[in-house]
Amino acid sequence: MGVSEAMGWVEKNERAGIDRLMDWLRIPSVGTDPACDKQTREAAHWAGEHLKASGFEVELMPTGDPVDSGKPIVLGQCAGAEGYGGPHILFYGHYDVQPADPLELWESSPFEPVIKAAEAGGVPGERIVARGACDDKGQVMMFLEAMRGWFEATGVPAGGVRMTVLLEGEEESGSVNLDRFVREQKEMLGKADVCLISDTGMLGRGRPAITYGVRGLAYTEVILHGPNQDLHSGLWGGRAPNPNNELVKVLSQLWDEHRRVTIDGFYDDVRPIGDDERKAWKELGVDSIEALSQIGLEPEADVGEAGFNAVEREWARPTADINGIIGGYTGPGAKTVIPAYASAKVSFRLVADQNPEWVVKAFFQWLKERTPAGCRFELIDHGGGWPATVATDSDALTAAMHAMKEACGVAPSLIKSGGSIPVAGLLKAELGLDTVFMGFGLESDRVHSPNEKFELDCYRMGLRSHVVLVDELLKM
Amino acid sequence: MGVSEAMGWVEKNERAGIDRLMDWLRIPSVGTDPACDKQTREAAHWAGEHLKASGFEVELMPTGDPVDSGKPIVLGQCAGAEGYGGPHILFYGHYDVQPADPLELWESSPFEPVIKAAEAGGVPGERIVARGACDDKGQVMMFLEAMRGWFEATGVPAGGVRMTVLLEGEEESGSVNLDRFVREQKEMLGKADVCLISDTGMLGRGRPAITYGVRGLAYTEVILHGPNQDLHSGLWGGRAPNPNNELVKVLSQLWDEHRRVTIDGFYDDVRPIGDDERKAWKELGVDSIEALSQIGLEPEADVGEAGFNAVEREWARPTADINGIIGGYTGPGAKTVIPAYASAKVSFRLVADQNPEWVVKAFFQWLKERTPAGCRFELIDHGGGWPATVATDSDALTAAMHAMKEACGVAPSLIKSGGSIPVAGLLKAELGLDTVFMGFGLESDRVHSPNEKFELDCYRMGLRSHVVLVDELLKM
Repeated sequence: MGVSEAMGWVEKNERAGIDRLMDWLRIPSVGTDPACDKQTREAAHWAGEHLKASGFEVELMPTGDPVDSGKPIVLGQCAGAEGYGGPHILFYGHYDVQPADPLELWESSPFEPVIKAAEAGGVPGERIVARGACDDKGQVMMFLEAMRGWFEATGVPAGGVRMTVLLEGEEESGSVNLDRFVREQKEMLGKADVCLISDTGMLGRGRPAITYGVRGLAYTEVILHGPNQDLHSGLWGGRAPNPNNELVKVLSQLWDEHRRVTIDGFYDDVRPIGDDERKAWKELGVDSIEALSQIGLEPEADVGEAGFNAVEREWARPTADINGIIGGYTGPGAKTVIPAYASAKVSFRLVADQNPEWVVKAFFQWLKERTPAGCRFELIDHGGGWPATVATDSDALTAAMHAMKEACGVAPSLIKSGGSIPVAGLLKAELGLDTVFMGFGLESDRVHSPNEKFELDCYRMGLRSHVVLVDELLKM
Repeated sequence: MGVSEAMGWVEKNERAGIDRLMDWLRIPSVGTDPACDKQTREAAHWAGEHLKASGFEVELMPTGDPVDSGKPIVLGQCAGAEGYGGPHILFYGHYDVQPADPLELWESSPFEPVIKAAEAGGVPGERIVARGACDDKGQVMMFLEAMRGWFEATGVPAGGVRMTVLLEGEEESGSVNLDRFVREQKEMLGKADVCLISDTGMLGRGRPAITYGVRGLAYTEVILHGPNQDLHSGLWGGRAPNPNNELVKVLSQLWDEHRRVTIDGFYDDVRPIGDDERKAWKELGVDSIEALSQIGLEPEADVGEAGFNAVEREWARPTADINGIIGGYTGPGAKTVIPAYASAKVSFRLVADQNPEWVVKAFFQWLKERTPAGCRFELIDHGGGWPATVATDSDALTAAMHAMKEACGVAPSLIKSGGSIPVAGLLKAELGLDTVFMGFGLESDRVHSPNEKFELDCYRMGLRSHVVLVDELLKM
């Protein structure tokens, strides 16, 4: 009993597995929204039940202070078969999803998943559309169903691989309780040898890839306070600071004319891109102009830090972005107001050895030095995580490469991602674990955007890859 | 029968008049909000009934295209007594009010007016708190009740003064249908000799004033479009334009380091402040630092265009203000998004001969020249109005000065205002009318802000001044 039986089971039960995914997607687990607390916990419970049915021992671990004020961590464990000689795998995923807004831009309801014909030119297929379809419920589901297949086929959890599964519910809101959890559970989690995550992307449709590096993140909120009340812009315009005007003037200084971040020392821990890496990335043939056209942009929109192409900017260069800004009257029509305050959410993507805590501190200092006359900054740190780059020659990564090649029929590429998976940096720092990022998303999946989707052929590749990976691990 | 009887009546019926004002304030006539259309029309009807009861012939004139898509204009007329030798007065006011948001900052409900003890240091009294308490229902009510007093006392509408009353319902949303109305009713309105408006302020509590100039307004909305969908800031940060970042960078260029507007030619039609005027303003003894402290600001917040003091900046210098800005995620917590678009409401206060249409055109051109790579501007003109400065030696203004001195016991000062009353410029351009601004608001009245209020002692001064003004006009 082995990989062909497990593969047979998942192929035969593929539709049933997708139906299960749709059930999970129907639970609006918007972890960052207090109004969705109940549903977020329900999504955790749902995942736990799925793991139990695959033979895992499962516990929902409370997080936060006071206890259980955070979202629970779904912890699944299986001891492995006697004589198993491969690594102990720590699978990490998350069951929370991004907020669905702006709702009016969704073509179908974000929490009523639908399967639609895929439109991608020339390639037939289907896609599942819902918030979380890809990020991260869809990707986690490939792993969960592969585990189900091995258990159904062999009667042994994970087919005999020694495994810990950790699914959190706060990834989309900064994993605020994960650090403490990992530190507190160091002994238990430290038994793992390597981490496995499905939350990254492929190089393109039909082009599987393993991601060997992700960017870090530092997310902040900046509130500029002026007068203690909203003012009439006729009586006060030109007489006192307008927080809207002043915030715009300060934030505009965050980039220089080369689109480099102007915070002193920001680039000190950024490493230059090696010639080999630059060459290897070029050979991947990423078409950044085509990618822009997919989001409605002309080639002239290929802008970013001077001296780097789009792939280099995404994979190896840090950024500063205003993710949100609001101040004054934003309803229909006109209101002649000078607001009491204006605010912005400003985040940084980090690379190499950039320390998110240092970046937040330096940014806040940078802001304070630019405090507009008569105004006051209120500064909030929403958390973040370290960048992570892992070795490309480890045993586990090699096993994953083999599994993907066999499962997909094409050798995976080695890529990086501009996104952030802070847990990877955390597990490296606290437990010394490297991470294998085996993900199957596409750039066009609209994660974090309206009409998020996941192509079923990508799902299928991921499902098969996870089935074969277990076999590769058993052979070690 | 004359002024003493009229004054006797208004004094005796002052509380009843304030009760009537509170009834009017209870009608949420937020003209700019389509959800308040019915109530806004109800407020027009209410004012018409009040005028009718003072002997005026009243008509509610539909505006807009299609007909009655705009808010009606309340038109009241009285022919004057035989032998009346004074000017035909056109009284202008508005019955619409600003939106009440942010609602959470109101201490009492904006449309449930309350009378509270006044807190102003040392000066006892009461105030009425509600949206529109001052701007403009409270100020219009002083005129309406003075008319009521004259009619009750003499049985003759307006005591015999020839008068046209025009109350509009779109002042707070740019008076979009007023131009056309004035042009279409040119013959009827053109019979007036001078316009009278109560929508301005005093120099301070107990310091009545006549305003001889107001700033103009040009109000726009700027939407910067980038990608055709919201993007993940990890996958796209540094690769494509972020409309939030780009809008902030463009708008920050609207002011130079001297806080002067950078649009080419913007100051061409601004006139320098004369030495006499500068001296006269200085002698008014306006305490701008005290005014800042009233809104919670330190002296260092006394900022604005270099080379001018606060009074000069408000009364004689133009400005650019961001009244609202919004883009991306603005809810609680963190969302790592690059938005498809970002927008801002940008308005200009204008002085002297600055043409609002020219300013809007020049601003839009200025923006287009700064269009960020890969982005597109959508530009909306929300209307505005010309600045207005009137002669300080006209017969009507002299009559108003006399009336205020007698009614208030102290000679009024001649001041200007940074606010905009676009109708004044319109009536000058279309009908050749000058305007006498006889208003009784205070800078601390929080017009356009939460907890808008009107001091009852200011109301009383205005009520008495309008009563005496009729007498002054009858003597002419």
